[in-house]
Amino acid sequence: MPGNSFGRAFRFTTWGESHGPAIGCVVDGVPPGLPLAEPDVQYWLDRRRPGGKFTSQRREPDAVSIQSGVFEGKTTGAPISMVIENQDQRSKDYSDIKDLFRPGHADFTYWKKYGHRDYRGGGRASARETAMRVAAGAIARKVLGDDVTVRGALVQMGPHAVSRDRWDWDAVEANPFWCPDAETAQTWESHIEEVRKAGSSTGAVIEVTASGVPAGLGEPAYDKLDADIAKAMMSINAVKGVEIGTGFAAAAERGEDAHDEMRMDGDQVVFLSNRSGGTLGGISTGQDVVARFVVKPTSSILIPRKGVTVAGEETEVVTKGRHDPCVGIRAVPVGEAMLAIVLADHLLRHRGQCG
Amino acid sequence: MPGNSFGRAFRFTTWGESHGPAIGCVVDGVPPGLPLAEPDVQYWLDRRRPGGKFTSQRREPDAVSIQSGVFEGKTTGAPISMVIENQDQRSKDYSDIKDLFRPGHADFTYWKKYGHRDYRGGGRASARETAMRVAAGAIARKVLGDDVTVRGALVQMGPHAVSRDRWDWDAVEANPFWCPDAETAQTWESHIEEVRKAGSSTGAVIEVTASGVPAGLGEPAYDKLDADIAKAMMSINAVKGVEIGTGFAAAAERGEDAHDEMRMDGDQVVFLSNRSGGTLGGISTGQDVVARFVVKPTSSILIPRKGVTVAGEETEVVTKGRHDPCVGIRAVPVGEAMLAIVLADHLLRHRGQCG
Amino acid sequence: MPGNSFGRAFRFTTWGESHGPAIGCVVDGVPPGLPLAEPDVQYWLDRRRPGGKFTSQRREPDAVSIQSGVFEGKTTGAPISMVIENQDQRSKDYSDIKDLFRPGHADFTYWKKYGHRDYRGGGRASARETAMRVAAGAIARKVLGDDVTVRGALVQMGPHAVSRDRWDWDAVEANPFWCPDAETAQTWESHIEEVRKAGSSTGAVIEVTASGVPAGLGEPAYDKLDADIAKAMMSINAVKGVEIGTGFAAAAERGEDAHDEMRMDGDQVVFLSNRSGGTLGGISTGQDVVARFVVKPTSSILIPRKGVTVAGEETEVVTKGRHDPCVGIRAVPVGEAMLAIVLADHLLRHRGQCG
Amino acid sequence: MPGNSFGRAFRFTTWGESHGPAIGCVVDGVPPGLPLAEPDVQYWLDRRRPGGKFTSQRREPDAVSIQSGVFEGKTTGAPISMVIENQDQRSKDYSDIKDLFRPGHADFTYWKKYGHRDYRGGGRASARETAMRVAAGAIARKVLGDDVTVRGALVQMGPHAVSRDRWDWDAVEANPFWCPDAETAQTWESHIEEVRKAGSSTGAVIEVTASGVPAGLGEPAYDKLDADIAKAMMSINAVKGVEIGTGFAAAAERGEDAHDEMRMDGDQVVFLSNRSGGTLGGISTGQDVVARFVVKPTSSILIPRKGVTVAGEETEVVTKGRHDPCVGIRAVPVGEAMLAIVLADHLLRHRGQCG
Repeated sequence: MPGNSFGRAFRFTTWGESHGPAIGCVVDGVPPGLPLAEPDVQYWLDRRRPGGKFTSQRREPDAVSIQSGVFEGKTTGAPISMVIENQDQRSKDYSDIKDLFRPGHADFTYWKKYGHRDYRGGGRASARETAMRVAAGAIARKVLGDDVTVRGALVQMGPHAVSRDRWDWDAVEANPFWCPDAETAQTWESHIEEVRKAGSSTGAVIEVTASGVPAGLGEPAYDKLDADIAKAMMSINAVKGVEIGTGFAAAAERGEDAHDEMRMDGDQVVFLSNRSGGTLGGISTGQDVVARFVVKPTSSILIPRKGVTVAGEETEVVTKGRHDPCVGIRAVPVGEAMLAIVLADHLLRHRGQCG
Repeated sequence: MPGNSFGRAFRFTTWGESHGPAIGCVVDGVPPGLPLAEPDVQYWLDRRRPGGKFTSQRREPDAVSIQSGVFEGKTTGAPISMVIENQDQRSKDYSDIKDLFRPGHADFTYWKKYGHRDYRGGGRASARETAMRVAAGAIARKVLGDDVTVRGALVQMGPHAVSRDRWDWDAVEANPFWCPDAETAQTWESHIEEVRKAGSSTGAVIEVTASGVPAGLGEPAYDKLDADIAKAMMSINAVKGVEIGTGFAAAAERGEDAHDEMRMDGDQVVFLSNRSGGTLGGISTGQDVVARFVVKPTSSILIPRKGVTVAGEETEVVTKGRHDPCVGIRAVPVGEAMLAIVLADHLLRHRGQCG
Repeated sequence: MPGNSFGRAFRFTTWGESHGPAIGCVVDGVPPGLPLAEPDVQYWLDRRRPGGKFTSQRREPDAVSIQSGVFEGKTTGAPISMVIENQDQRSKDYSDIKDLFRPGHADFTYWKKYGHRDYRGGGRASARETAMRVAAGAIARKVLGDDVTVRGALVQMGPHAVSRDRWDWDAVEANPFWCPDAETAQTWESHIEEVRKAGSSTGAVIEVTASGVPAGLGEPAYDKLDADIAKAMMSINAVKGVEIGTGFAAAAERGEDAHDEMRMDGDQVVFLSNRSGGTLGGISTGQDVVARFVVKPTSSILIPRKGVTVAGEETEVVTKGRHDPCVGIRAVPVGEAMLAIVLADHLLRHRGQCG
Repeated sequence: MPGNSFGRAFRFTTWGESHGPAIGCVVDGVPPGLPLAEPDVQYWLDRRRPGGKFTSQRREPDAVSIQSGVFEGKTTGAPISMVIENQDQRSKDYSDIKDLFRPGHADFTYWKKYGHRDYRGGGRASARETAMRVAAGAIARKVLGDDVTVRGALVQMGPHAVSRDRWDWDAVEANPFWCPDAETAQTWESHIEEVRKAGSSTGAVIEVTASGVPAGLGEPAYDKLDADIAKAMMSINAVKGVEIGTGFAAAAERGEDAHDEMRMDGDQVVFLSNRSGGTLGGISTGQDVVARFVVKPTSSILIPRKGVTVAGEETEVVTKGRHDPCVGIRAVPVGEAMLAIVLADHLLRHRGQCG
């Protein structure tokens, strides 16, 4: 039961370690005849790519190559293989982390599971794997078509949440934090600067939204649309929670406030609110699908923490070198991609059963 | 791509509508030789069964029958079929909800998806389906064995959260709310009484915990242990959010506080805290696995809400008859069951790949 | 990774032992809105049911009950649970086979795999399981619709093959052997009578055909239409081989004779022969899909054979009581059902990916 | 529901077109700690590689590159990505086949399924895809370990079958046909020479055998070991039939001859024959697993055949250039690989459920 694939009808499998020769994915089940070329994928990869002042200093072009499944500019229905060479992986010295179980990292659990692991740069557990999610997400967007818009924003960094009143999707593109509120973006800039100087890191909450999703997507019982979204988001590195619509706030609500009332607009049913986050009984309502997830602070920090070695010696762990004080920033395009993938998968699944 | 099954190695499929002749499930992949009889399953079903003063008045014995896969008191490795007859389903008049899209219910989305639906008592979307999750969970507990303990509690009802300082697992069994804090249980009693009188309903947060889980369970990338837990919990009716360990609180944390430091206890690695909730990189650490999920207030309430009919007429919806003011209470045994199922599935998956 | 399910989009799971309380299946992924009632399924079950002079004497009504997924005479898209009570299972004495490994039976392998087994009447390994394949096949036929006809015939019994020149589909219904050639049916009657008197059994070859299958069904590479048909047929009890189109005869052919030439009939491509058996590259051509499979002689015979006991003692095995001298006869409706299921599954899969 | 993956626990996915930039596969679920390096895979690829006098003239080194999942000479449990660059794919002129539906090829069915296809050298339907099966099979052999031997031979070419009495596994390596009988190999040499001169092609039967397989592998009902073998073999290009053990010959047998009797050898159960081909009830007996499959004559021949064009014009098709008069020869290593893969998959599946 290997775990490196996601999706049932739109299905992709990723491979590759952070400091191996390359990373890649195979996307299977893509409908034929969709226009697709490398720049369509590269566009989204470039949005994820680290390099800004506030993210990791790893500088790789992350140039994607499509190896199969596309012919004369269109998908053929055959599996699409995409590869990114790791250019930055040579001549590293990993002796400092080779035998270390670092707090907050997967070193210990991989060791317990496999006995043998690729310790270079986090190996398979590295967030570098998420690049291929973004690549697969680019194809998922093609499957969804132009009527569906999937986008995301950072809505909280450390203790600082955005103001919903000032929400502006254009602002998201205008700052290095995907912040939908220009004023809060400035607060975050100070915050992250302070965190970096302290050698620490900070958490974040991301919100992803899909507009234009037709009603009827999702399966009852176990493969509910929101259940698959929850899995998709929780599978992203460092994520500790997921919510849909009102989410955890629903606990304190009363029944008369918690549900979306309906009225008619001509012959269309309209909802008077979107507390449900776009799903009822696990199936899309036609309203925006809205999910949020939380990313814990980066585990690699300059502040010494207590760790142990493979040999069972107690030690202090300090992580030098490039790292993101807030990995949540880079998770925004990844969350968007996973949402697009879940929707594309359920679009094809729905078409299969219900025509 | 049907959605009525869950799990890869320990896999179960449920069927049945709320007011059809019966509900049931088939559990496949169960290891042979485990002692199993109907009372082992019935015990857990009885814990879930409504009937108390604070839950729905539907009174069914919910007597489970094992139809296959068990011989001479032990599992054979063949699929285990379990059935519960619906005794309460006859002679109902559903004309009042037949053509209605009720706010917060799946009426509208099922209609949009399938065009044709079993409207009796919510049909397939009814929480009655969760009885079979509890039945499958009883078998999952057998697979996990006596060293693993899976249990749950309600940790918030409406705006009232329990006190962690007063947490007492024995208290959980001593009140009708699965409340681990006797003092808060009294607050809840007043709260739910008030809600009921108002014809309203209230939300809740449930925490489920597994102790004794060996390190190494879970798959990297997409089938992370926590990702599968997130899907499992979000697939439960009315759930709007899931978190692991510190969960959403991680957003406001600093890197030096967010991760579990390690020390040696003899030749064993020990963690000095459990902020991770028992997983790192999607794989169990050996600490308690701790997840929380939120259940929205029951959508069936006496307070009139705006709905529409299948024919496109605007109407007011009032739900009479038996209903739970807080469906979260009944979700506790369901959450426990789903956690046990995810763990059993990953236990077998891990054994398959890693021996 | 349990093995009691079949299909990806049209997916069914069977359960139950030969002499347990009941057998059943759950069919998931069925499109909504298909007319379906118990007689639609019963019709096909009755064709499979033993009882004739030339098959087993087990006399059960095999009355199917639909427990879910159908409402007001139509499928709802929810899982369809079907159950057949075992009326004939009581008060048996199995002490003679309880501790025996019988030649040609699965006693030994189940014992080696599971250590613990339900030995009553073959338990899970009994051909009784195939009744639920026929039930699921009845629903698959509904999915395929009236334009697709799936039917089968016995084309060889023992050494006696039918004459292709005398093939008559009407004859198939007019004799107890599903023989398409009235003359050969008479030969078979003598043959089976002789075999029965000798306390022996005889093998058979079944041919199943689907007409009206649209071109384009099947997946490249591993889930080729013919690959899934091969798995479907080989999964039937006692089957030892499967072939498509010319099958094994293709070994001795020359390239110029082995392939189907094409011409135009108006604007339609027509094939001048059907050596391919209706698939090219694993995808349906639009011609008849034609497969054959071989069923070995019944292993339960009156002639003593060398077996051993669980305790490791050598013994002679003689099987008394009701048995089919030619189980191949009863495999005809099962083969038809499995072909219908594979086609329905691929129809939905194709619609999912290609619209 | 894409179809380019195979296996449940040991699972691989292939990608790539005959004349695209590369072909590759991702193998997921491989146990950690197995010694593995590129030469381990290359060895088996070299056996499959065309180039001999009697196979296609395509001359590519087919050098495999391992991109992930192996570290310090051992598998890590992470997905193993393998790639072979297509060196021979440039500057081709495909205008002669671009718009053609060739008899016996998948041109027509791909067109009907996808509407859009990569026509270069057969695209995804080319037998070149089978190279990655051999690569995955090399890893499957590692999973099975040294106690299991998987090997194959050509047992019939055109009308000429080998003599079982002269069977010699060493001979298989000593002629270009994988022929286990040196005398028949000479007959084949004349036969294939004659076929080639005639511009025709010829069919073949391959037998694959696995020794040392433990008893207990395989799942009841649908994922029987022999059912999965049947699917595996039928999924190989140009295969039209599969049989296990006595196979189609079982039709003409009597019950007393068709089954393997048992005796004790010390405390071990021994079978007095292996008519079953190593499985009973779909589960391995511990005897050799023996399967045969038939490969139709190559469809690309010099003898003109009737075809049509995409535009609906009738035409004569003659295939010039390099081609194998008997593609069955190259199918031997592919069949071995698929058998190893099915066994490795079931080994891990069995360990998961039964420990």
